[in-house]
Order: sequence, then structure tokens, then C-alpha cells
Amino acid sequence: MKIAVIGATGTVGKAVVQQLAVRHDIIEVGNSSGQYQVDITDIHSVERLFEQIGKVDAIVSTAGKLHFGPLQELTPEKFQVGLRDKLMGQINLALVAQHHLNDGGSITLTSGILSEEPILQGVNATTVNAALDGFVRAAAIELKRGIRINVVSPTVLQESLASYGPFFYGFEAAPASRVAQAYSRSVEGAQTGQVYRVW
Amino acid sequence: MKIAVIGATGTVGKAVVQQLAVRHDIIEVGNSSGQYQVDITDIHSVERLFEQIGKVDAIVSTAGKLHFGPLQELTPEKFQVGLRDKLMGQINLALVAQHHLNDGGSITLTSGILSEEPILQGVNATTVNAALDGFVRAAAIELKRGIRINVVSPTVLQESLASYGPFFYGFEAAPASRVAQAYSRSVEGAQTGQVYRVW
Repeated sequence: MKIAVIGATGTVGKAVVQQLAVRHDIIEVGNSSGQYQVDITDIHSVERLFEQIGKVDAIVSTAGKLHFGPLQELTPEKFQVGLRDKLMGQINLALVAQHHLNDGGSITLTSGILSEEPILQGVNATTVNAALDGFVRAAAIELKRGIRINVVSPTVLQESLASYGPFFYGFEAAPASRVAQAYSRSVEGAQTGQVYRVW
Repeated sequence: MKIAVIGATGTVGKAVVQQLAVRHDIIEVGNSSGQYQVDITDIHSVERLFEQIGKVDAIVSTAGKLHFGPLQELTPEKFQVGLRDKLMGQINLALVAQHHLNDGGSITLTSGILSEEPILQGVNATTVNAALDGFVRAAAIELKRGIRINVVSPTVLQESLASYGPFFYGFEAAPASRVAQAYSRSVEGAQTGQVYRVW
């Protein structure tokens, strides 16, 4: 398969590339690095990406920013960070990809454990991750030409504990290499509309 | 209690007012009618509302627009309808209300069955409703002064079947009067972070 990984230079993205590259042709896409660049918050940038890479069999997104901060200090502007980037950025990818994937292709997005297990300062993350889980449930029943869509919902990464550990006391961390297996299950499996929880 | 109902002139809003008015002082808020008006998509309008109505013990929101249409024709602009209105509109209400409610007050929002039971042309609705269920789970653990937050997730209304029935074949409808009881359970009960499903 020809697989485009958006967010290929991040911690999860690198592990996904390593997992899939032994069996498939990988196109590495980043925000400012990788073979191709895209700004997922801009649908025109996403359209240009698909014009450049041509038909693919699968896209995997491990991209998207969130806002972390106390509920008492949240503003619509801070809330937009996650809505514009991790949520609409990945939805933009799906909306464009549905027209550019080969028949039987797949779309795999990324949400996260906070959708169901909230933490302090994580309101934006829980909202956005829950929205992504919902988007995938609904989009799965409308996609044409045998195209599938799933989302991977990872726990906190072992590799991120140095930065985010204090937010996640009591959470079991997973190495990116284990999280990457869920992307393989989505891309190389046959299910659709699934939330693959790695926790 | 002094309770502000935002969306008071809608089908659910009217039923909520009827349910709660026998025991409480109700402030009816609409978009263009009611005792007070608010544009929930504009946080400044929401702030002005709370300056006008003063301290209250509970707010109930039954307001918010969604986009319905095929996935193949979705654009970021169409998707924004639900994100800006039903999602951020209600989040704006919660963000402002947390600073204006009396101690021990409550916030009750509205999502809907499509969060978990998707229908054709309902991608925006499923995404937004799932996001609202998530927002409430996360906000509940951060609210101060004993303030609670819940969301009511109704099935399709019997009163809406004439307009929306063809989208909801096979769904059990509920009368607005039954849906209104879930708002009473949220406002007059003691739980927080709950999704009250009326289906």
C-alpha cells in the first residue's frame, strides 16, 4: 500500500512509520519538515497536499494541537486552539481524503484517553478528543467506495512523561511503539467506525 | 431557585419552563424573543446577559444550531455551523456562568442521541454532541464553589417528527415533556459530570 502519514516527524508518527514501512510505501508529511508539508488547519493546504502526493491507499494522521489550562481562565480564543487544529485539522484531512483515496482505502485519525478520562486543565483536550471519536463513528456510515475510517485513542506516551508526566499521575503510559500497533490494526485491518483505545 | 433557561422559546425550552416554573423563578432567554435576548455565539453577548439577569442558581441551555448534510459535500464552513453555535455557544454559556452562578449552582447543557447513534447526513451533529458530552465530563472536575454541570442527551422529539422524521426512522421518539424531566433531574438533583440520556 501507499500510505501518507501526516505528523510523521512527531513521536507517534515516527513509530507509525517504523511499524508500516517494512511492508508499505510511506509518504512522510509534516508541518514544517518531512517529504511534504501541510497546514492541516487550512483546507486549501490539505487540497494542495493531495494534488502533490496523488492517489494513496491510506492516510494516517498523528497531528494536532490542543490547549491545556484551567477552566476558570478558558476563553473562546484558547478553546479554538484545539477546535481549529486537532479537531478541524484532522476533519479537513478526512473531508479531502475521501475524494482522493483509492477504492477500499482508509483514514486513521488520532484522539486520546482524555476523551473519557478527564484531567485538570484538560477541558479542551477532552472536548476535542470526544468530538473526534464521534466524527469517526458518524463518517464511517457515509463514506463511499469501501473507504474506512477509524481513530486511535492513546494513553499518555512513555516518551512524553518527561514533559507531561505531572498531568498524568496514575495513568499507565504506553511506548509509542505499542501505540503504533493500533494504527497498523486500523490500516491493515478491515473494521470501520472504531475507536482503538491503547489503554 | 432562580433559573435562567436559554432557548426558552423552543420546543424543549418551553417544556423545561413548564416543568420547573411550578417550583422556581424562571428567567426566559431567547435568541430574538423571551424576557432577555442573547447571541450565544458571541461571548460578549453572553457576558451582557449575565450582567442583566444578575446572580442565578442554575442555567439551562436548550439552544444551538447544527448542520445536516452529506459527508461528501461537507466543507469547513458548513462544519463551523455546529461548532460555532451548538458547541461553542453552549461552552460560552458555561465559561461565563461559572463566574456568575451562586455557590452550589448548576449548568445544564443539551447534546443529543446522535452522539452515539449516527444517522446519514448527521456527521456535524454526532461530532458536536459527542464534544458536548466530553466537555461536561471534563468541566465537572474543575468547577469551583460546588457548581455542577450536566448535559441532557435527548432522542428525537415527538413534536419534531413532522420535520425530521425521515432522518430518524427506527428511533423511538420522546415527547418534550418527558425530555424536560431530565433537566429537572440535573437542576434539582445533586450529580455532576453526567450525560442524562433520554432514549
